[in-house]
Amino acid sequence: MITEDNKERIDSLISKMRAGNQRATGRLLTLVENNLDAAAYIIKKIYEFTGNAYIIGITGAPGSGKSSLINTMIEKFVDAGKRVGIVAVDPTSPFSGGALLGDRIRMKRNFSINDVFIRSMANRGQLGGLARATKDLVKVLDAAQNDIILIETVGVGQSEVEIFKSAHTTVVIVIPGLGDEIQAIKAGIMEITDIFVVNKMDFAGADQKVAELESMLDLNEKYEVSNPDHSLIVTRTQGWRPPIIKTNAITGKNIDKFISLIEKHKKYLIENNQMENKLKIKYRSEVLEILKFRMTQNIEALIYKNPEINQYIDKIIAKEKDPYSISEEILLKFIHMG
Amino acid sequence: MITEDNKERIDSLISKMRAGNQRATGRLLTLVENNLDAAAYIIKKIYEFTGNAYIIGITGAPGSGKSSLINTMIEKFVDAGKRVGIVAVDPTSPFSGGALLGDRIRMKRNFSINDVFIRSMANRGQLGGLARATKDLVKVLDAAQNDIILIETVGVGQSEVEIFKSAHTTVVIVIPGLGDEIQAIKAGIMEITDIFVVNKMDFAGADQKVAELESMLDLNEKYEVSNPDHSLIVTRTQGWRPPIIKTNAITGKNIDKFISLIEKHKKYLIENNQMENKLKIKYRSEVLEILKFRMTQNIEALIYKNPEINQYIDKIIAKEKDPYSISEEILLKFIHMG
Repeated sequence: MITEDNKERIDSLISKMRAGNQRATGRLLTLVENNLDAAAYIIKKIYEFTGNAYIIGITGAPGSGKSSLINTMIEKFVDAGKRVGIVAVDPTSPFSGGALLGDRIRMKRNFSINDVFIRSMANRGQLGGLARATKDLVKVLDAAQNDIILIETVGVGQSEVEIFKSAHTTVVIVIPGLGDEIQAIKAGIMEITDIFVVNKMDFAGADQKVAELESMLDLNEKYEVSNPDHSLIVTRTQGWRPPIIKTNAITGKNIDKFISLIEKHKKYLIENNQMENKLKIKYRSEVLEILKFRMTQNIEALIYKNPEINQYIDKIIAKEKDPYSISEEILLKFIHMG
Repeated sequence: MITEDNKERIDSLISKMRAGNQRATGRLLTLVENNLDAAAYIIKKIYEFTGNAYIIGITGAPGSGKSSLINTMIEKFVDAGKRVGIVAVDPTSPFSGGALLGDRIRMKRNFSINDVFIRSMANRGQLGGLARATKDLVKVLDAAQNDIILIETVGVGQSEVEIFKSAHTTVVIVIPGLGDEIQAIKAGIMEITDIFVVNKMDFAGADQKVAELESMLDLNEKYEVSNPDHSLIVTRTQGWRPPIIKTNAITGKNIDKFISLIEKHKKYLIENNQMENKLKIKYRSEVLEILKFRMTQNIEALIYKNPEINQYIDKIIAKEKDPYSISEEILLKFIHMG
């Protein structure tokens, strides 16, 4: 529970954040990340101010040039007059290391703290799950009036798929060669990608990589037809064939084209009334994560604090029942669904 | 659910395992690891045959000589006429790579498959959690009439602490130097250790490492007194001050002394009636893991399959309510505890 004093402090931080105070934003982010009660209080308070930012998820293996690409994207967005917020979930990223660390980033130029706000999540063992924490941080940055929010992750695991349910556009970066790297993330890659970037386009094998991805997309379209039910786990846009763009994030080659693909995708979402569908997937997943965490807390309290549980454990020790049977009994007795 | 056919197949595997067929043991282990319904069925069936093995947990950082120490322990136990089962949870371990892989291990000598059975858990993303899977594998190896079961893990994270709730004796290996390595695992180290091994005893700083551990133990005894409630999260033996033994796993120096410390600890557990206390901690934790997983499944079914949930998600999209408030409403409406 949060004390009245703390509520007042949080309310004041929210006002300051809304007025553009980035230090207040940083403190709210820390609270949201580390304290689930505070997160619930803060999200309730700021929820009405969210929904204005355009959220872009970016993933790629270490060495794919992801950070350079993000640097270049930041430049483009800032030059277009946008405020940019970044959540770096990748622990290997040069963006990692704490809040407001403009100086630690290998940026090509310095941005004003009012234009670019970077938040790193160093600790992947976040309370209530990495996805929960990331999605709440994005909401805070959204309420802090950022126009664009970039979520940087590494690879495509279960958490990343959940995270990308918050993104409007999800970008996956691959590079020529490294067949194995695609193999490794293949399982999830087709379910989440809206735009493929083949970075380091001047390396040998760039066109081959494009061809590889195209044939994976061909295969995937067949799969889609035969699995009408999979829309629940798929975060990429239905009916949109992900375009593939070759870039060089260092020289900036094709970056403008890449940015206009993001705009094209946004336009597609709006014109095909898919924004609401995105929101449905996103909020269903968020509610699921919150409920899972709340139930974990409830079950821990039951097992460790309810003295009635002792007699169940004693039955296991006496070998009258095994742990699975006892778990079923406890479930039936103490937890009712429906 | 498991079909009647599969039940028959499993029943037959259990009979074969009980008759000493190690291939049947391997197949049961795979089922238990990868299929929760099968795990529940198998554990129910074999539970009456468990409780005879002595379970030893061993953890240490990569490079601490853990594998050499385990090799040497296996030799000693086999020479004493024991059957040994090993569950290797450490993905960096030379023991890793699949079942029955005697040939892949850098063992000093070859053991009969009837004497030593090694099972590696390559995939840490186990269904229902790593700790759940590990503890169930240990039960199968126990029912397969192994006298000693070694659980090898790396480091001391949350999963490892849960895993060691299954062990009678937990051994932590450290080496001279590497102050940081102790720092890194310090948070959990005092809560789980029954015996400290300072391996590579001939390296400079071995005595200093022993002194360091002794002073940590002194501090810890004070902590213990002031925290009567912490017995629930602590897996090491109450009232037992962990001895510290210097070893050289390569030359075998002090290994006999180390083995007799394990025997001394076992004797302490029995003479002080702490075996039952160990079991209470262990089964409470197992029931907790099973319930958490079952509830996760139930909540996923609720959120993705119950059409009533749509109206809740719609309220979030319409900005009438935020995800936290809606989660609370769903919790109140659909899940009743107590």
